[in-house]
Amino acid sequence: MSELRQNIATKEWYVIASDRAKRPKDFKHKKPQREDFAHSEKCPFCPGNEHKTPPAHYVLEHDGKWLVRVVDNKFPAFKPEGGRKRTVEGIYRKMDGVGYHEVIIESSLHNDHYTKMSLPHLESIIQTYLLRYKKAMEDERIEAVILFKNYGPSAGCSLAHPHAQMIAIPVVPLHMRGRLDNAKRYCDDTGNCVFCVMMNDEDKERVRVVTENDSFIAFCPYASGAPFETWIMPRRHEPDFRNITDSEIKDLAWIMKDLFSKYYFGLNDPDFNFAIKSPPRDESNDRSFHWYIKVMPKISKVAGFEMGSGMYINCTLPELNAEFLRNVEVPATV
Amino acid sequence: MSELRQNIATKEWYVIASDRAKRPKDFKHKKPQREDFAHSEKCPFCPGNEHKTPPAHYVLEHDGKWLVRVVDNKFPAFKPEGGRKRTVEGIYRKMDGVGYHEVIIESSLHNDHYTKMSLPHLESIIQTYLLRYKKAMEDERIEAVILFKNYGPSAGCSLAHPHAQMIAIPVVPLHMRGRLDNAKRYCDDTGNCVFCVMMNDEDKERVRVVTENDSFIAFCPYASGAPFETWIMPRRHEPDFRNITDSEIKDLAWIMKDLFSKYYFGLNDPDFNFAIKSPPRDESNDRSFHWYIKVMPKISKVAGFEMGSGMYINCTLPELNAEFLRNVEVPATV
Repeated sequence: MSELRQNIATKEWYVIASDRAKRPKDFKHKKPQREDFAHSEKCPFCPGNEHKTPPAHYVLEHDGKWLVRVVDNKFPAFKPEGGRKRTVEGIYRKMDGVGYHEVIIESSLHNDHYTKMSLPHLESIIQTYLLRYKKAMEDERIEAVILFKNYGPSAGCSLAHPHAQMIAIPVVPLHMRGRLDNAKRYCDDTGNCVFCVMMNDEDKERVRVVTENDSFIAFCPYASGAPFETWIMPRRHEPDFRNITDSEIKDLAWIMKDLFSKYYFGLNDPDFNFAIKSPPRDESNDRSFHWYIKVMPKISKVAGFEMGSGMYINCTLPELNAEFLRNVEVPATV
Repeated sequence: MSELRQNIATKEWYVIASDRAKRPKDFKHKKPQREDFAHSEKCPFCPGNEHKTPPAHYVLEHDGKWLVRVVDNKFPAFKPEGGRKRTVEGIYRKMDGVGYHEVIIESSLHNDHYTKMSLPHLESIIQTYLLRYKKAMEDERIEAVILFKNYGPSAGCSLAHPHAQMIAIPVVPLHMRGRLDNAKRYCDDTGNCVFCVMMNDEDKERVRVVTENDSFIAFCPYASGAPFETWIMPRRHEPDFRNITDSEIKDLAWIMKDLFSKYYFGLNDPDFNFAIKSPPRDESNDRSFHWYIKVMPKISKVAGFEMGSGMYINCTLPELNAEFLRNVEVPATV
């Protein structure tokens, strides 16, 4: 029989359809065709084509060449011009699409992958996320920053060259408000951060842990909405991503390399999305929240039921998925 | 400049990225390859293969052959066994996946489409939705019913034969609760149903209306999350789909045929999802709610930003989309 499980942090119910359950190894699909060359003449993110992107906001150099490069999205969903004022249009409210929409080009190599990168390279990427995140938040019109990566076509990625994106927005999304409210209510009731409670329980139970080190623990949530969904959570209670420490950045680089290598070798290089979940401006000191990274391999499709209910059906057991990922052997040469 | 628009009913903000805007005709992609034969030996939903599905719950016959047939989903996410009791598993809550998961086979023809069906056939389909919806709600363990259709592979549909699905669940999804709360608050503040206010405004403004008749109006919402998103709303204020009248069913059949023909001919037969949005059991008499059908052509991809924020970027203008769909000429032979 399938069961419903409630995520203690989000209060969302997920269907864990173990009757139609697939085994973790069933997800080892054929390896997708990726553009497997180090340089592409046509790619606007490849060295030599810097003129094809808007001017760089930030460039990190290494050995006289750039390693990480930040530019505006060529087709930005948000632009810096405009204000926070809501205007009324008939019965509706609208406002300027004021904000930032940047692309963080994560490597000069067209076919680079977290799996292949050195740890210092990954640290530089995270340092760049942090720098641009902080910079966006200096603008008081910005309410929230979403830092995310789309990897592969089914994850909504149109350019193969490794990159993440940052979108800084002038409103608090309803969805984010809901999560904050739930965390606040939990904290009002119990005095605890619900994310710490969840993490400590995962740490104690061990069954859903995928990988970990001194600063982070990565686990498949008890109530997860899709196969192999993984949360990377800092062990230190801290609401805001902006307060990550240097040693935590080192540890996060290691976790990302390890987790994405497990995806790569265990699930055959699946498409995925991740997003940093950190609170909006006014809640950045709110002790009831705790930042983390949500990672979703793009393996199952969202359809009419999800659209109608806002609920998700997961046809795998998080415990089996975590065990599977734990046991993936990452070749030593990586 | 792009703008943010707030949906008055859901309180969600959507990014209308008119800078990166595509014109409606840009979405007229190449016609997808569909299985274009009236009968398939392999298809479990085709006549002659009835033994390949679980036994029928309901069969509607016409001229000695079946027209509509309802069976259990072969891999159900929910089953009738179990109770509503939540149990505690460590720090978490879980419950039985009790409910119903049925498939409504909408035609005996493998390659049938709403566009090609007669109006009485479409009425029979809606009558069948209603019958199964009511039947599921007779079970007091059921809190909510989601009736939906996935059409085409990118909409999550694995079998080409025309079918819809019904999932009846023992919890109220958080997302649904949020919508109910918003509608309630609006009604507390203003004394009005927010859906009636929205519909009356669309009816008056005309710019986002796609099609209409005496009982229904179909429009692209002012703040819509995806290209060509359309809401079909009954003109008569009524919280619960179960109270649809016979004459409204006739009118809904006409609207569905017209709308999906406009998609078919105007957008080249796109994949789509729809879901009936009707309140859960305990709110079925709540005057602040108003049932409707949400239709989403599957044209754009959901990615990391949407996952991180719960917000959607729509790179089209609802006004242009509605105008485009209004002007699609449906061949008279259909």
